Amino acid sequence: MQPQGFLSVAKNVGIKDETLDLTVIHSTVRARAAAMFTRSRFPGAPVIVGRRHIANGFAQALVINSKNANVGMGKQGIDNAIETCRIVGEELGVDPYDVLPFSTGVIGRALPMDKIRAGLRGIRSQLKLDNLKLAAEAIMTTDKYPKYFSCRVGPAVIAGIAKGAGMIEPNMATLLVYLMTDAELPRAAVRPMLRRLVDRTFNCTSIDTDTSTSDTVVLMANGLAGKVKLGQFEKGLLEVCEYLTKEIARSGEGATKLITVDVKGAKTGTQAKRVAKCVVNSPLVKTAVYGCDPNWGRVIMAVGKSFDPSVEPTKVTVRFGDTNVFKKGSPVECDLEALRQYLGQSEVVIGVDLGIGKASARVWGCDLTEGYIKENAYYTT
Amino acid sequence: MQPQGFLSVAKNVGIKDETLDLTVIHSTVRARAAAMFTRSRFPGAPVIVGRRHIANGFAQALVINSKNANVGMGKQGIDNAIETCRIVGEELGVDPYDVLPFSTGVIGRALPMDKIRAGLRGIRSQLKLDNLKLAAEAIMTTDKYPKYFSCRVGPAVIAGIAKGAGMIEPNMATLLVYLMTDAELPRAAVRPMLRRLVDRTFNCTSIDTDTSTSDTVVLMANGLAGKVKLGQFEKGLLEVCEYLTKEIARSGEGATKLITVDVKGAKTGTQAKRVAKCVVNSPLVKTAVYGCDPNWGRVIMAVGKSFDPSVEPTKVTVRFGDTNVFKKGSPVECDLEALRQYLGQSEVVIGVDLGIGKASARVWGCDLTEGYIKENAYYTT
Repeated sequence: MQPQGFLSVAKNVGIKDETLDLTVIHSTVRARAAAMFTRSRFPGAPVIVGRRHIANGFAQALVINSKNANVGMGKQGIDNAIETCRIVGEELGVDPYDVLPFSTGVIGRALPMDKIRAGLRGIRSQLKLDNLKLAAEAIMTTDKYPKYFSCRVGPAVIAGIAKGAGMIEPNMATLLVYLMTDAELPRAAVRPMLRRLVDRTFNCTSIDTDTSTSDTVVLMANGLAGKVKLGQFEKGLLEVCEYLTKEIARSGEGATKLITVDVKGAKTGTQAKRVAKCVVNSPLVKTAVYGCDPNWGRVIMAVGKSFDPSVEPTKVTVRFGDTNVFKKGSPVECDLEALRQYLGQSEVVIGVDLGIGKASARVWGCDLTEGYIKENAYYTT
Repeated sequence: MQPQGFLSVAKNVGIKDETLDLTVIHSTVRARAAAMFTRSRFPGAPVIVGRRHIANGFAQALVINSKNANVGMGKQGIDNAIETCRIVGEELGVDPYDVLPFSTGVIGRALPMDKIRAGLRGIRSQLKLDNLKLAAEAIMTTDKYPKYFSCRVGPAVIAGIAKGAGMIEPNMATLLVYLMTDAELPRAAVRPMLRRLVDRTFNCTSIDTDTSTSDTVVLMANGLAGKVKLGQFEKGLLEVCEYLTKEIARSGEGATKLITVDVKGAKTGTQAKRVAKCVVNSPLVKTAVYGCDPNWGRVIMAVGKSFDPSVEPTKVTVRFGDTNVFKKGSPVECDLEALRQYLGQSEVVIGVDLGIGKASARVWGCDLTEGYIKENAYYTT
């Protein structure tokens, strides 16, 4: 099930090896669009160019290469991103300012423009309908599997594809995520809705505390299916975003488990999210989950390093799954063996109740394993 | 070479196994003292009690157990820390408020007070001079080796012992560090000097971004060697603190390399330190150093995630050792093989010049290896 009017092509042009590395997604009509980009002070060239191109609130084509991030390349990088948009615009008969460029992969190498130019020539005839799953595969870097989800909202369909899987603690936006719908959305609704949902989903995940230079989430709504109920649509889009967020966390580099951290009883949502991020990002919590060790000591340590003056140790309760292990500042006698079994599952929930208010937050992450080290120590420049 | 008037005993009382686990350090005369404690919102019971006892600016004895951190134990934990000080006071004929308690090890278990009480009885007769190296061994947790350093300043001697080696990104103070001197210091000088030096040394290190519940640095000056030149003394104390800081980083859990990050060209010292911490804490930088991969892309990513609006990509320069790899926003052609060899050494320096001011900062950390994962995944509660 895919939204109407979104054609795509995914191919190999030999940027690094023989896997898919170049994707173009094309809406047959100009789409209302919004995007959120990384807050990194070292944004990639595609982010710099993409920010300019999305400014008018429209997009009609996305061009994405994997295996090379086009980051840290100075003026040459910018020129290459602009040229890529220009070629796509020519090939598809689209205003180049309605083309958004994306690159993901190694930092610090020049884009092989000869290969990209050659790969883009003639793409119009190669575009296919209902081809987004292949696009999800082509944008992968170290992801274990492609990430795709779609759902129906009234007459319309929403589809999303995403890639992880390392350098991931998004800030304001994240990763590469493309959300496409044939719903007709009011202009004023698009960007605020995207921001709300990104803050509740992609901005609530962290694989390794590192923030990519290339994080971007794009929403394109081409209107071909007509109007939808906005509340219902936002619910559907939340479902897509939450699914992709969890899949990104679950498939983090080297990960064996999805970790969900639920913080409640906070004074504000910001506080709840800060504490939850401290827990989900702690390498000692992550390794304890990997080792199936119900070590709540590391959880309270992580809550403590929020350095939040309103956090009161004597009011804090910690749970693994449904089992309280630490209640209002003191340990609870537990069946350690049962807890070890719980932590051996592929999804683990750590609950923290701060006991000082009514706000809550949920974030997602993964365990930290030897696999993460191997993947990143031996990823040679 | 040890300062006069500091006696100590280090023994095993069976808290977990047969290694040294209980230490008492005793100054024969009351010493001027200052301490800096963790900013964690989940401080251990010894931190809570120690803060009260140091408030008058004096200390005469330290009692330290390893293998159990006495953290997260509610009122019982506080009572146990107070009782420990009372017993030490009785045994040594010292005001219990001049005794500082410390515990390090697993979080969330009750201190075995029977064993500690029995171990403390009769310690007066067990105290030895020039025994601080054994104390350095007894306070270890997952440290690979004891950390001890001393130096002479005029007529006086400064000695320091410290333990790492995980849950270490100190905040305002760090780890367990005991600095002892027989210099006579003016009352008003002790605390400000300690704060200055801690900010330049222990607060500039990070093993794993986690902040211990038990971090404490104590300086005791018993005055037995008489007055010293203050500037000279501070220089000596800096030498001790810097040595211990580097040893802590070098011996981080699973570490194979000491990483020094030098940031210069910043607008303020705070900015320089923030950027340096972003680099030294990035798991992707740490794994690249482990894998001897001269991947400056990960360094600029880490600079970018400082989210500092005044950082300008086109002004940033990155060095590995003496070799520029990225200059004012663009890559520099380099001999990759030579860089790989440089990164294969046991000490690696990453330099970042922000190019926007004159302030600088230096921080220390270590690489991230499979050893860290193994040590912390299989450390069973």
